[in-house]
Amino acid sequence: MSKHTMHLTSTLRRLSAPLAALAVMLPFTVAAAHAQSTANPVAQEFPSQYLPHNLPSPHLASYFPQQWKTYASSAGRNAVFPLPASAPASLRSGVSWSFAGAGAVPLNGPPLIGDFKTTAYTVGMPVGVSVVRGILYAGDDNGYTYALNAITGKLIWSHYGWNMNMSNPLVDGDRVIVSTGNAYFNYAKTMQYVRGKRTVRGPGLNSIYALDRTTGREIWAFHTPGEIMPTPVDLDGFLYVGTGDGHVYKVSVATGKLAWKTNIVSFVSMSSPVAGDGNIFVGGTYPNYFYALDQKTGKIAWKTTIPGLVATGISDCTPAYANGIVVQEATIESGDPANPVANVLLALDAKTGKLLWQQRMSNGPVPPAMKTATPMITHGVVYEGSPVTGNYHAFDLRTGKKLWTVHLGSQIRAGAAVLDGVAYIPYHSGDIAAIRIADGKLLGKKHIGGSFGPSSPVIVGGTLYVSNVFGWVTAIPIRQITASSAR
Amino acid sequence: MSKHTMHLTSTLRRLSAPLAALAVMLPFTVAAAHAQSTANPVAQEFPSQYLPHNLPSPHLASYFPQQWKTYASSAGRNAVFPLPASAPASLRSGVSWSFAGAGAVPLNGPPLIGDFKTTAYTVGMPVGVSVVRGILYAGDDNGYTYALNAITGKLIWSHYGWNMNMSNPLVDGDRVIVSTGNAYFNYAKTMQYVRGKRTVRGPGLNSIYALDRTTGREIWAFHTPGEIMPTPVDLDGFLYVGTGDGHVYKVSVATGKLAWKTNIVSFVSMSSPVAGDGNIFVGGTYPNYFYALDQKTGKIAWKTTIPGLVATGISDCTPAYANGIVVQEATIESGDPANPVANVLLALDAKTGKLLWQQRMSNGPVPPAMKTATPMITHGVVYEGSPVTGNYHAFDLRTGKKLWTVHLGSQIRAGAAVLDGVAYIPYHSGDIAAIRIADGKLLGKKHIGGSFGPSSPVIVGGTLYVSNVFGWVTAIPIRQITASSAR
Repeated sequence: MSKHTMHLTSTLRRLSAPLAALAVMLPFTVAAAHAQSTANPVAQEFPSQYLPHNLPSPHLASYFPQQWKTYASSAGRNAVFPLPASAPASLRSGVSWSFAGAGAVPLNGPPLIGDFKTTAYTVGMPVGVSVVRGILYAGDDNGYTYALNAITGKLIWSHYGWNMNMSNPLVDGDRVIVSTGNAYFNYAKTMQYVRGKRTVRGPGLNSIYALDRTTGREIWAFHTPGEIMPTPVDLDGFLYVGTGDGHVYKVSVATGKLAWKTNIVSFVSMSSPVAGDGNIFVGGTYPNYFYALDQKTGKIAWKTTIPGLVATGISDCTPAYANGIVVQEATIESGDPANPVANVLLALDAKTGKLLWQQRMSNGPVPPAMKTATPMITHGVVYEGSPVTGNYHAFDLRTGKKLWTVHLGSQIRAGAAVLDGVAYIPYHSGDIAAIRIADGKLLGKKHIGGSFGPSSPVIVGGTLYVSNVFGWVTAIPIRQITASSAR
Repeated sequence: MSKHTMHLTSTLRRLSAPLAALAVMLPFTVAAAHAQSTANPVAQEFPSQYLPHNLPSPHLASYFPQQWKTYASSAGRNAVFPLPASAPASLRSGVSWSFAGAGAVPLNGPPLIGDFKTTAYTVGMPVGVSVVRGILYAGDDNGYTYALNAITGKLIWSHYGWNMNMSNPLVDGDRVIVSTGNAYFNYAKTMQYVRGKRTVRGPGLNSIYALDRTTGREIWAFHTPGEIMPTPVDLDGFLYVGTGDGHVYKVSVATGKLAWKTNIVSFVSMSSPVAGDGNIFVGGTYPNYFYALDQKTGKIAWKTTIPGLVATGISDCTPAYANGIVVQEATIESGDPANPVANVLLALDAKTGKLLWQQRMSNGPVPPAMKTATPMITHGVVYEGSPVTGNYHAFDLRTGKKLWTVHLGSQIRAGAAVLDGVAYIPYHSGDIAAIRIADGKLLGKKHIGGSFGPSSPVIVGGTLYVSNVFGWVTAIPIRQITASSAR
C-alpha cells in the first residue's frame, strides 16, 4: 500500500463517524478565536475567506494549464495536461488529497435519507473542477466557489454567490468566471405553463461573477432573469451562455457588459455551449431544439430537433466539437413501458445542422434529474456514456460506427479524460473506471465513495482531479486507478 | 442620543462599506488559524459551530420564556413577555445588538441587483425568531439555523440543514425543532400540472430536525417528499405540520416517528398550523381550501374556501386562533385590472368552519411572493396588515367591525407584537412602526434598514427581537421605537 493510498484510506475511515458529531467537535477552537477578534458583525462566523499563504509557488504553478476558457477546458472536452519529464517528480507521480466543502456528506456514508436523487442535486459539487496555474476551482450547490491549492488541497479563497454554482469555473487572465442559478420554477411560473404561456426558469439571484483568481474578490456581476446553470464559453474576451429566460447572452469578460442577446425562446438547462466554425452551439427546452448561433451577430444560424424528446433531454447535455462536427446527446421516449427512455447520440454538421449520424443506445429506466452524459472527443473518437443504461461507448466521430461498449452498471453523466490510451470515467456508484481505448477493456475501477454526477475529471501530470455530488474534491494519482483490479 | 442608539447608528454606518471588501478583509486571521489546527477535512472551513462560552447565565436565562411551541409562541401570535420589576435592569431597559448570518447583505445598502423580490426570497431570514431561556433561534434561507445569546447577540451554535429554513424554531424541553424546504417545482413536476396531474412542491431534502437546544447537535430528522416551509405546532409531545406533498403529518417530538398523516391533497405553502378546540387549522393550495383536522384522528373535520383565490393566496397565511374563532387572510382577484388583487380577512367558527365575518381590504398591485400577512389576536382584537395596500388594521374579533386603519405605505407581511397599548409592526421598507392600539395613532417609526418579510417580532422585557430578509437579527430597546418621530 503506497503512502498515498494509505492517506486516502485513513481519510475514508475517519469519515465513517457521524457528520453531526464532527460538526460539534471540530470547529470550536477557531471559531471562538474568530468571534473575539473582530467587531464587525457582517457574516463574521460564516465568511467568504482568503488565505493567501495557501497560494501555490509560481514555480509549481508554471507547470499547470495557464487558462481555462470553456467547459472541460476544450471544445473536445478532454481536460488532460501531460507534464514534461523536467516537471517536479511530485506532480508527475501525482498528488493525493481530499477537500470537503460546506455541508459535505461523508464519502463512505449513505446518501442523506438514503435517496440519491436528494443527495445528488441539492448537495455538493455537480460539475467538474478547473485547474489553472496551480489553483483548483470548484463550484458548489450551496452557493460557494472554492479555490484550492492544487498541490496541497488547502483552501485559498471562497466566494458566496447566493444561488447554486453548477458551472465549471473559467479562468481568463487574472479573472475567474462562474455562473449561478437553479433548475426550479415557483408556483406562479408553473401556472404559466398550464395557461400555455412562456415562462422563466430559475427563481432567486442568477449571475455571472468575475472574481479575482488569487483573492476571490468580486470584480463584476452580470444578472439575468433566468438561471445560469450552464458554463459560459469564453472566446476573444467575450462570454456566451444560454439561460433559463430563453436567451443566449454575449458579455464582455473585461467589463461584464452585454454585447448582444438573442431570444431563442427555449430555456437552457445544463447545456454549456461549445464553439466551432464561427458558431456557438447549445441545447434548449420548451420548445426542444439544438441551436447554432452566429458568434458575431447572435443570429440563429440553424436549429434542429428529433422526435420523442423527454423533459430537458436535449438541453441537459453539454455538446462537444471537433473537425466540423458537433455532437450532442439527447433522451427520447423508447415506446417500451418497462424501459421507457433511451439516450441518442447525435452528430451534426457544424455549418448546416445536417444530421450526419445518430446512435440510439439501449432502453432503460428514467434517470433522476440530468438525463444525458457529456460527450468527449479526442483523436477522431467520441466517448459517450448513458445514465439510462450505465454503458460507456466509443464511436468513430466521422462515421458513427460503434467501436466498443463497456457496461459500468450505474448512471454515467460525466465525460471521460483520456491519457496514454486509457479513458478515466467517474460515475454514479462513486467509482472511477479505467478503460483501455484500443479495445474497450476495463482495466480497473477505483472506488472513491460518494457519487459522481456530470463531473468530467481533469488530469494534470500524474494527478486526476474530480469533484462529486457529496461535496468533495478528490486529487488522486492516476496510477492508483489503473492499478486497481476490475471487480 | 442614548448609548444604545449610538451603538446601532455606528453599526449601521460601518455597514456602508461594500460587502465584497469586508469579505476579503475580515476573516483572514481566524480562518488561517483554523486551517492549521485540524487534520480532518470534513467541512473544516465552513463548519457547523458550537461556542459554549457564549451561552447565557442560568440566572439571566430564567427571566425569558421557557418554551416555544407554536409560530410566534401562542395561538394568538402575540410574542410578548413582560418582565417583573425584580428582573435585571438591563433586560428591562432593553439590549441592543445585531447579528448577520452567512451571506447577509448590508442593511443600509441596496438589495442585490436592486430587485427586492430577489433579495427577499433567497437571502436571509424570512420569518421571525424564537427567544427561549436566554437563547434566540433563527432560521435562514441559506440552510442554517442559528442559536444566539439573546443578551449579547453572540453565536452559540449553528446547524446546516441542506435546504431553506423558513420556520420559526420551536423549543420543547431541551429540543429545538426546525423544518426545511423551498417553494419550487422542477420541470418534470411543472409538466405534471400541465397534464392535469397532482404533483409535489419542494425539490431537495425536506426535513424536520430535532436539535439539542444548547449544542445544536442533531437528535433526529424526519423527511417528507414535499417542502416543510411552515412551522409545526407542538401539542402534548407531537408536532403537526402541512407540507408540499399535500399531507398533514403528526410526528413525535421524542422520537421523530410518524403518528399519523392525512392526505389533504392541497399543498401547504407558508401556512403554519394553529391549534384550537381540538382541531388543527391550516391553509392549502391546489385545490384551495382552509382545513380543520381533528387533532387526535387526523380526519378532516371541515374545509372551506372563498371564490376568486389567487395563487397560494389561502396557504401563505399562518392563521391565528382565540375564543373559538380562527382567522385567516387570503388573496383574491379584485376584478380591477389596474389593481388586480385584494386581501380578505376571514373569521371562521373553529368547530364548524362557518364564516362568521369577512373584511375585504382595498385593491392593489400583486405583491411578490407571499401575498398575505400574519393575523395576530389579543384581548378580543385582530390586528392584520395587507401586503397589497401597505395598510395595517384592527378589527373586533367577534363582530369583524373595523376599529382603525393606519397606512404604512409598503408591504406588510408580519404580525404585530402588542405591549402596553402599543402595536409594533415591522414591514417592507425596513421600518418598525409603533401604533397606539386605542385609536390607531402612529406614534413613531424606527428605520432599521434592510427589509422585513413575515417576521413577527418578539418582545422580552424592554427588548424587541426581529429578523429580516437581508440576513440580520436585530435586538433593539423598544423605547427607541416609540421615541422615534413619525415621518
